[in-house]
Amino acid sequence: MSKTSPLILITNDDGFYAPGIQALTEVAKEFGRVLKIAPDKPQSGMGHAITINNTLRIEKMPNQDLMGAYQCTGTPVDCVKIALDVILEGEKPDLIISGINHGSNASINVIYSGTMSAAMEGYIEGVPSIGFSLLDHAQEADFSAAQSYARQIIKMALEKGEGNFCLNVNVPKLPEEMIRGIKFCRQAHAKWVEEFDKRQDPSGKDYYWLTGHFAPFEEHQEDTDLFALRNGYVSIVPVSYDLTNYTTLEQISAWID
Amino acid sequence: MSKTSPLILITNDDGFYAPGIQALTEVAKEFGRVLKIAPDKPQSGMGHAITINNTLRIEKMPNQDLMGAYQCTGTPVDCVKIALDVILEGEKPDLIISGINHGSNASINVIYSGTMSAAMEGYIEGVPSIGFSLLDHAQEADFSAAQSYARQIIKMALEKGEGNFCLNVNVPKLPEEMIRGIKFCRQAHAKWVEEFDKRQDPSGKDYYWLTGHFAPFEEHQEDTDLFALRNGYVSIVPVSYDLTNYTTLEQISAWID
Repeated sequence: MSKTSPLILITNDDGFYAPGIQALTEVAKEFGRVLKIAPDKPQSGMGHAITINNTLRIEKMPNQDLMGAYQCTGTPVDCVKIALDVILEGEKPDLIISGINHGSNASINVIYSGTMSAAMEGYIEGVPSIGFSLLDHAQEADFSAAQSYARQIIKMALEKGEGNFCLNVNVPKLPEEMIRGIKFCRQAHAKWVEEFDKRQDPSGKDYYWLTGHFAPFEEHQEDTDLFALRNGYVSIVPVSYDLTNYTTLEQISAWID
Repeated sequence: MSKTSPLILITNDDGFYAPGIQALTEVAKEFGRVLKIAPDKPQSGMGHAITINNTLRIEKMPNQDLMGAYQCTGTPVDCVKIALDVILEGEKPDLIISGINHGSNASINVIYSGTMSAAMEGYIEGVPSIGFSLLDHAQEADFSAAQSYARQIIKMALEKGEGNFCLNVNVPKLPEEMIRGIKFCRQAHAKWVEEFDKRQDPSGKDYYWLTGHFAPFEEHQEDTDLFALRNGYVSIVPVSYDLTNYTTLEQISAWID
């Protein structure tokens, strides 16, 4: 592959050895030069966390036919930052991909997701970025359909993508022949309802595990990612780092005369 | 104060003993019953991280004339979740406030901010929420102007707020008499330019500190928070948990015929 072939930076939040990133790396290699950098331990639920009160280390790994492979002690966002600044020394990738996450990042999950925060960080840095997630938490999940759609979406992004963008791609847990195609969607409104699991340690002191169930408010709205996924489609939601709520902005401007 | 006075939940990301949350607690107490829960250590830059691979503990603290005061081993988002589910057992606060943060959360900082993620979590849970930040990192910062504006904004939110909202309030580092008032704004476009500081540990292995400088792209746009702050105003940006980029959604729909 020539030196001018696309440069793709790949990361995730499940850690360097997760099957999901290995599946996505195989696909990425078909398109160009691939630099892999992933957390040295699982970082699910890390949101857009960065490491500012502690040091960061990166470790060069056997490169697996890649341009380079690294483990990093930080969060997914740290991985992107250190790859762009330290490893690539300012050379901009053509695309940043994150995943394939073991589990959904559709709807409100995007807010808590390390996978999507890595993609968002790439986007903020001016690099088109895509996060991929499969709606299956299992370590032994079948990534073949997700790989096939990742291939199709990376190809579209490299060939048709204009300007900067960040995509949240979710793949239903279905065999490939059952998937009905791709839908571009908006993020469905939903929340997690917490159910903290209270336990006692051996010395009798209370501690808690965060658990909960997902409460969708919009699964029947046809333009949402939840609707697409429940109807057998791969969902693509473009995301923004401008968090301004323009509707509320108009409303609250009346608070002051 | 009667049992039906407003219930305000207060948290932060700088930790239970930070001067900023003490300053904000003093203001909150003027409005009703206050429940304080804050991380037991600094959690700046934690973004919307949640604790799913570890246990959580809460410790009841001397209550300082509050309805209750707790330290939590988790992130700012964990604090909000455990307060709503475990401590309040489902009783909904009238308002969640977070801060006063030691340092700016204007512009792109909102994405990395533990302070704002706590407020965002409240908003997702259906509780109007406000994050307050002062543009001064110092431990000994003067919070008096920020307190005065927090008082004014909490009053407006309780009296004039309708439905659900989440506000990102930033206060310039100025004496109160120099502050020109409040501006409702949108989030200015900006990024952090990383400058990793490379060092060697005593055994000769490299490690890094994340540092960088703030690169504003829109400080001269009059409707942005950066413009307001640089011109001596308190900025209020309402934020959204719907990350959908509707402009990009329209553009990329053309990728598939």
